Amino acid sequence: MMPFSELIRNATARNKSHLCVGLDPDPEKFPDHLSKDINGARTFVESIIDSTSDLVCCYKPNCGFFEQFGWEGVQMLEELRSMIPAHIPMLLDAKRSDIGNTATAYAKSAFDVIRADAITVNPLLGRDSIEPFTIYKSKGVFLLALTSNPGAADFQLPNDLHYQVCDFASSMATNCPEVALVAGATRPDDLREIRERFPNGLILVPGVGSQGGELEETIKAGSRHDDLGLIINVSRAVLYASSGKDFAEAARDAASHFREQINNAISATA
Amino acid sequence: MMPFSELIRNATARNKSHLCVGLDPDPEKFPDHLSKDINGARTFVESIIDSTSDLVCCYKPNCGFFEQFGWEGVQMLEELRSMIPAHIPMLLDAKRSDIGNTATAYAKSAFDVIRADAITVNPLLGRDSIEPFTIYKSKGVFLLALTSNPGAADFQLPNDLHYQVCDFASSMATNCPEVALVAGATRPDDLREIRERFPNGLILVPGVGSQGGELEETIKAGSRHDDLGLIINVSRAVLYASSGKDFAEAARDAASHFREQINNAISATA
Repeated sequence: MMPFSELIRNATARNKSHLCVGLDPDPEKFPDHLSKDINGARTFVESIIDSTSDLVCCYKPNCGFFEQFGWEGVQMLEELRSMIPAHIPMLLDAKRSDIGNTATAYAKSAFDVIRADAITVNPLLGRDSIEPFTIYKSKGVFLLALTSNPGAADFQLPNDLHYQVCDFASSMATNCPEVALVAGATRPDDLREIRERFPNGLILVPGVGSQGGELEETIKAGSRHDDLGLIINVSRAVLYASSGKDFAEAARDAASHFREQINNAISATA
Repeated sequence: MMPFSELIRNATARNKSHLCVGLDPDPEKFPDHLSKDINGARTFVESIIDSTSDLVCCYKPNCGFFEQFGWEGVQMLEELRSMIPAHIPMLLDAKRSDIGNTATAYAKSAFDVIRADAITVNPLLGRDSIEPFTIYKSKGVFLLALTSNPGAADFQLPNDLHYQVCDFASSMATNCPEVALVAGATRPDDLREIRERFPNGLILVPGVGSQGGELEETIKAGSRHDDLGLIINVSRAVLYASSGKDFAEAARDAASHFREQINNAISATA
């Protein structure tokens, strides 16, 4: 099975894109003509994929948004790998955070049942919460290193905690080269330090778009020595670019715009 | 809708029990005569519930173990609230860890779709990751305060982090009286401090049984001023007490044994 990083490299080469589109089907935001149930969700997600799949390097379905539709949402999650063209990898945003045989069960769900090519994991429970995923050697395992939400200040966590996660990921990478990181885009200085401590792997950067990180700064700060090594995620700004019947075209225009912005920023910082 | 703590109080009174049985359907451990698929899982879980429901104060289905069966496992999770007698509350062990509208979607899945009476949450992303659950006023929201897994040492988290979680839960409890804690049973000194900092709410204590915490010490350390205020969880030692055709009876014997042990320990420490 092809390693996740290679799937990304191939999709990037084919579509000239470092853009990942997050699939967060939120019935409150569906175009008016779609039903707010599982049927509407299916039409919505299929249309988004059809209209953007030549513009992205990855799709990132967000578990919670599917689970809210109940078992039918999970059934759709299982069908997603076939709905997405085979040459575009699928990264499951699950942020699972459990240990031992529970983590093993989550890994089985993500990789054997849903057939995701990669997953996001909250790493703070330590290696017992990560290794059940990394034993799937070819799968990407993205450790949450940095979030930019206000509530992150509710606990006095060490200032260097996200660097500890980077160092931990680096130390794992010898045996598990598909270990990767998630790092919010809002603090480029942090991203620079993260890249220094984690020089070789992929970094997923959410928060561009509706959260407004600065693209050029992000790319400058997070690029790898050999190539970008970043997956830039945009969700809402693509999915909900229009609430009319033209939502799929509007999503295509938005994705096209972001792809170009990213590529321009790469050229500008080269 | 009745608050979770009251559901627990009523079930405890009725069954004279502080025992919670964790529902972790693991096909590797099913009795030999059951199939290792969703049908085996359904028979297994139904039999366990039927044979123990007069001995427990709560059931704790563990999401991952259901999700590993794919959408059919999730469908079963949705049927579980009806399979469990109405007077026994159901606590969904999900350890979700996400923010904003993703957390809202997870809450919708847990409370509106699966109709759980309570959920476990990893609180370290802060209030943004908790409030989408606590707005369901009657539902129990159990914050993970202390784990006893070896990997917990992989990051240099503050020694008092679990106390910070307790203080945080206490401060939330004014507005959200159904906020509760999860605290591993292996360190009674910690549990004593946790109870001092979180005097009024429920504490779920896993790790009794196959992880071998000392029951009397645990009860002494964690009891509330007015009543126990503890939910003692046992999973494997009940579920997999026998791998033969007598598994349901063996589970009943084990649950009965644990209920008695707990009640004896309460009497001994009174």
